[in-house]
Amino acid sequence: MLNQIVGKHAESKKLESNILQISQDAKLMKAKHADVIDATVGMLHHEEGNVFKYQVVEDLLHHLSDAEIYHYAPVRGTNAFSEGVVNWVFGNHTQTIKEHFHYSVIPTTGGSGAISNTFYNFNDFGQKVLIANHYWTPYENFAFEANIELTTFQMYDDSDCFNIEDFRAKAMDLAHKQKRLCVLLNDPCNNPTGLCMSPDDWKAVVSVLNQVADEDIPVILIHDIAYVDYQLKDPQYSRETFLSYLDFHPNILAVVVFSGSKTFSLYGFRIGAQIGISKSKDIIDQFVRVGDYSVRGRFSSVSQPGMNIIGKIFTDPHYQNQFSQELIHARKLLKDRAILFMEEADKQGLKILPYCGGFFISIITQNNNIFKDLVQEHVFVIQMKKLIRIAISSLKLQDIPRLVSILRRHI
Amino acid sequence: MLNQIVGKHAESKKLESNILQISQDAKLMKAKHADVIDATVGMLHHEEGNVFKYQVVEDLLHHLSDAEIYHYAPVRGTNAFSEGVVNWVFGNHTQTIKEHFHYSVIPTTGGSGAISNTFYNFNDFGQKVLIANHYWTPYENFAFEANIELTTFQMYDDSDCFNIEDFRAKAMDLAHKQKRLCVLLNDPCNNPTGLCMSPDDWKAVVSVLNQVADEDIPVILIHDIAYVDYQLKDPQYSRETFLSYLDFHPNILAVVVFSGSKTFSLYGFRIGAQIGISKSKDIIDQFVRVGDYSVRGRFSSVSQPGMNIIGKIFTDPHYQNQFSQELIHARKLLKDRAILFMEEADKQGLKILPYCGGFFISIITQNNNIFKDLVQEHVFVIQMKKLIRIAISSLKLQDIPRLVSILRRHI
Repeated sequence: MLNQIVGKHAESKKLESNILQISQDAKLMKAKHADVIDATVGMLHHEEGNVFKYQVVEDLLHHLSDAEIYHYAPVRGTNAFSEGVVNWVFGNHTQTIKEHFHYSVIPTTGGSGAISNTFYNFNDFGQKVLIANHYWTPYENFAFEANIELTTFQMYDDSDCFNIEDFRAKAMDLAHKQKRLCVLLNDPCNNPTGLCMSPDDWKAVVSVLNQVADEDIPVILIHDIAYVDYQLKDPQYSRETFLSYLDFHPNILAVVVFSGSKTFSLYGFRIGAQIGISKSKDIIDQFVRVGDYSVRGRFSSVSQPGMNIIGKIFTDPHYQNQFSQELIHARKLLKDRAILFMEEADKQGLKILPYCGGFFISIITQNNNIFKDLVQEHVFVIQMKKLIRIAISSLKLQDIPRLVSILRRHI
Repeated sequence: MLNQIVGKHAESKKLESNILQISQDAKLMKAKHADVIDATVGMLHHEEGNVFKYQVVEDLLHHLSDAEIYHYAPVRGTNAFSEGVVNWVFGNHTQTIKEHFHYSVIPTTGGSGAISNTFYNFNDFGQKVLIANHYWTPYENFAFEANIELTTFQMYDDSDCFNIEDFRAKAMDLAHKQKRLCVLLNDPCNNPTGLCMSPDDWKAVVSVLNQVADEDIPVILIHDIAYVDYQLKDPQYSRETFLSYLDFHPNILAVVVFSGSKTFSLYGFRIGAQIGISKSKDIIDQFVRVGDYSVRGRFSSVSQPGMNIIGKIFTDPHYQNQFSQELIHARKLLKDRAILFMEEADKQGLKILPYCGGFFISIITQNNNIFKDLVQEHVFVIQMKKLIRIAISSLKLQDIPRLVSILRRHI
């Protein structure tokens, strides 16, 4: 009988499904069969099948100095990166946010690293984070690895709108039970559903958080904005959400999760950031203290070339302008696919969840076997609880009518 | 009174000293004063002051395909990377190791990520890892972040040799107390001391580990080989150590920590690997299960360009040969500085710890204020418990006599 080699908390760790692995399987089948449709991984691709890279990113990568490529990155990040990320994320509202809040930026290994660190630092072991019932499954892995759990509220009400009533009920209940409320919202352009919460939804959410904070219960809002630059409307519209922050109770900590992977197609570099925002200086001091520690205590520092590319784009108007122009093309690629998908779905009678932007369209299904059924038809999607997620980011326009028809048959 | 926003286990997290931060301070002073000697960070530099980059790495970086740069890396790593790392690390003994052991490779965010993951997965919360009393201080951060502690044995005996007696005593004691023995040894070319354990030292260590494993106590050896390619003797000599593994008790898990930062100067990329080695297939299955999970649950995947550069160098004889040639130059840079430093120390009567390779030379000191004293002389080193660490990796030959003289005065 073998002794217990792994730690007690790691005994039941097991990767159940892995989106990146399924994507590898799709690639393998595609090498054999030309008709394979791979709608698995959230990486933006051109119609021709190659990844959408930003030329300004590419040019900068090949013109960084040796120090900008090879040296260790500073744990706290360069000023160009940190201030640049803040300016980009908050857009027209940056000054307003800076006037009302203390803030700090911790560079992380992608958005994933930011969420993982925050889960670990801002919960006691065994506590639960509140999250919508449709969610990107790696959140489960981040939670289990941090020795915490997830608990859900219903994302939609009967009209397919954000279910503020269920959010309020579950938030109050959890806050009272465990004397801590840590909420994760992935908005705008939710992965997997494509939902964008309205300004009124956000006002209502903030009101619930304030009610909890009024009871002197710690409140942490993790705001994952990975797809902030890819909504159907003008990206500035995505930033309106942050105005709801102005009403925050002084003791609330918001951690805004920025993804260099999505905004710059730097998926393979692992660069992102967590932006801590609070009206309390003490809370931001604590955010910095534990965040810095986790960077050093988990991987020492982040991607130096990734950090420098982003720092340059965000601080040089020429590069930023070039990037913004390219982003328009990226958004158009997505928009054309989304519109065709929605038209085809409408025509063929396939009910999809309301989509307002981002890399994914989702469909509720009762078919528990749908992943395998679709693979038989040479279609790869990601199956989550009661839905399938279609990565329009990597779909070709010409495949969409056929895909909708196949989905229609198996849903 | 503010409520407790961070989790209980994170309450006392605080970065006490940060080598990367001290290095930033040194750079700032150097911009003002030409005579500043910066011997802080372990990055190999040319005499002219620029980082030692490998031309083969540089050429490959600028000729990777878009997919090899931008796509997410597979969580399990490419075959070229994983097999390449194994072949490189074990050198002439690869076949022997493969014949006697099960093994698996998990790509990580540098050597730091490998150690952090292993600390977290292979200890119960609150348990202790045994380590030499002179150690790279970030190990403390990896431990605290993993909710475990470090405990030490005396590295040296009275003859400045590896203190196997104290290792045995502390290992047996810890194993019996907590019913788990997790040991971290940084060898060859120890950071900070420059010690290389002899084949006899390793035999004796394995004998202690076996004795513990015989009592059905889990034994994990974390073998940090970050500086394996930088010893004074031929690097193949560094690989002789692995022959001692052949005597392992069947239930021992060794986790060999490979650093892409050090071997390839890819410091800023965050790429490394943990190689799990055991005679037990079950143990390697568990190593893979929890290791994969930690990659996904902490940062999703590692650096794709870093992984592909290393994969290509390790699998293409042309690139590997070019790299090996450049490595000879890198080692000569270090060797020239080490020899001059040892000669000067001898001449000026400065007693250093025995150095056999790697980026650092260390000196025992009783001066608790030495860091500040040296900064006053425009010299930056890293102070650790009872010693100072000199990064010869970033020293210029011409600065060495003056440095030794300044050290002599303050030690």
